[in-house]
Amino acid sequence: MSARDKPAGTLFGLGVGPGDPELLTLKAARILREAPVIAYPAPLEGDSMARRIAAPHIPEGREEIAIRMPMVPARFPAQAVYDEAAETIGAHLTAGRDVAVLCEGDPFFYGSFMYLFARLAERFRTEVVPGVSALTATAAAAHAPLAARNDVLTVLPGPLEETALVECLARAEAVAIIKVGRHLAKVKRALAETGLAEHARYISHASMAEQRVLPLADLVEDTAPYFSMILAHRRGTVWSKTQ
Amino acid sequence: MSARDKPAGTLFGLGVGPGDPELLTLKAARILREAPVIAYPAPLEGDSMARRIAAPHIPEGREEIAIRMPMVPARFPAQAVYDEAAETIGAHLTAGRDVAVLCEGDPFFYGSFMYLFARLAERFRTEVVPGVSALTATAAAAHAPLAARNDVLTVLPGPLEETALVECLARAEAVAIIKVGRHLAKVKRALAETGLAEHARYISHASMAEQRVLPLADLVEDTAPYFSMILAHRRGTVWSKTQ
Ligand SMILES: C[S@@+](CC[C@H](N)C(=O)[O-])C[C@H]1O[C@@H](n2cnc3c(N)ncnc32)[C@H](O)[C@@H]1O
Ligand SMILES: C[S@@+](CC[C@H](N)C(=O)[O-])C[C@H]1O[C@@H](n2cnc3c(N)ncnc32)[C@H](O)[C@@H]1O
Repeated sequence: MSARDKPAGTLFGLGVGPGDPELLTLKAARILREAPVIAYPAPLEGDSMARRIAAPHIPEGREEIAIRMPMVPARFPAQAVYDEAAETIGAHLTAGRDVAVLCEGDPFFYGSFMYLFARLAERFRTEVVPGVSALTATAAAAHAPLAARNDVLTVLPGPLEETALVECLARAEAVAIIKVGRHLAKVKRALAETGLAEHARYISHASMAEQRVLPLADLVEDTAPYFSMILAHRRGTVWSKTQ
Repeated sequence: MSARDKPAGTLFGLGVGPGDPELLTLKAARILREAPVIAYPAPLEGDSMARRIAAPHIPEGREEIAIRMPMVPARFPAQAVYDEAAETIGAHLTAGRDVAVLCEGDPFFYGSFMYLFARLAERFRTEVVPGVSALTATAAAAHAPLAARNDVLTVLPGPLEETALVECLARAEAVAIIKVGRHLAKVKRALAETGLAEHARYISHASMAEQRVLPLADLVEDTAPYFSMILAHRRGTVWSKTQ
């Protein structure tokens, strides 16, 4: 087999977990040791959270691709950014080099990895390595089980309109609200209106050094950081009146 | 400090991931190296799945506590079993020994760990170590992103009554159905009635050697194993008509 016939590399979507570098899986840590090229989403300026989480596990001398995108990509040519990243990554794969794309939390839980997956997975061998998601990391941090037995669990993004939030919350049993950020005031109103505010918990930066956990009622701020979630349950806690 | 004043041990709820022993977190693997006592749920007879997943990481000579329970605990005195397990574990903690309770997937995502947590967390230092849940491991196996952007994600247990399933599914966008087992036929009908059957995927034993992934429409059996899930999305796939 000549160099030109070298088999193509594998694209890895690598969940790196919610923040604590010790919450990487053994598999993600191994792939980081082996992959010659790593890529990761990053803000237009500054550090990539996924890169920061994985940092202790990245050997020196790796080829790195930062996929730079504004945190709120409204009206930004996101397509063009993903097209370009897919082309760069595709060139490495074609040359036979594995590429590990770092994904905060889990790659397929509201992750931007899907945009690269949609562009590359049909052409290249692709493996998605699931990671610990913020969904369960926040519950662990809050000492609050997410859902039990036959509970219906609803994950709601904060950017939804207030009427949509209220409609979903009115029927909800176990609830996790992601992407709270500047939607905090609206989300608080919707939880109050639907009887879920009292026992709701606010968790920011779960598993990171800056982790904060408190009853939502005690939160005085009107906006929340990007890495924050709210958990609530219709019964107050999951286990009241259960075993 | 005399031996009697030895500080109490820590209770760990340890997510061991969905099946592949390489999907343990580095933190779970470390705690398994250190904890002198491990406990795990097990069927009345035979092997514990959580124990089997963690096996490569459990050093020899650990004290082991199997918490035995029928797979379908209807009318079974589950309370008494958890009371007894809590007492045994509590005695180890009081004696200053850390106890790691192995939990398949994540401890707080529909896990039975909450029953021990409810009995012990107020009396003993407790730490929940989140794990990779079946929710994201099945999506990774199916090459199917769970949810994107402002999708509402609904997790539904298969044992719900058919009318309740239909009611939830009719409004649902992104869906994961857990605990399919002997409820498969009912779940299939509910998905068909609500227009979600066509693109639904069936995944059993995600990340294990026996893993199976197929379109739900191609599944001929009328019951499914305990470790199986169904994923569906109102748009067919998450990324159609997105970036
Ligand atoms: C675009 S989603 C990506 C989620 C990620 N793929 C995962 O599996 O956790 C980003 C949202 O996840 C939540 N999030 C992620 N990491 C978090 C953390 N460490 N603590 C609290 N919330 C977090 C926040 O609500 C944030 O707005
Ligand atoms: C009682 S729940 C516990 C879930 C677990 N705590 C977790 O985080 O994945 C058990 C259900 O999870 C799903 N499940 C767990 N592991 C799975 C796997 N490896 N593949 C497919 N489904 C799985 C099945 O639907 C099963 O009936």
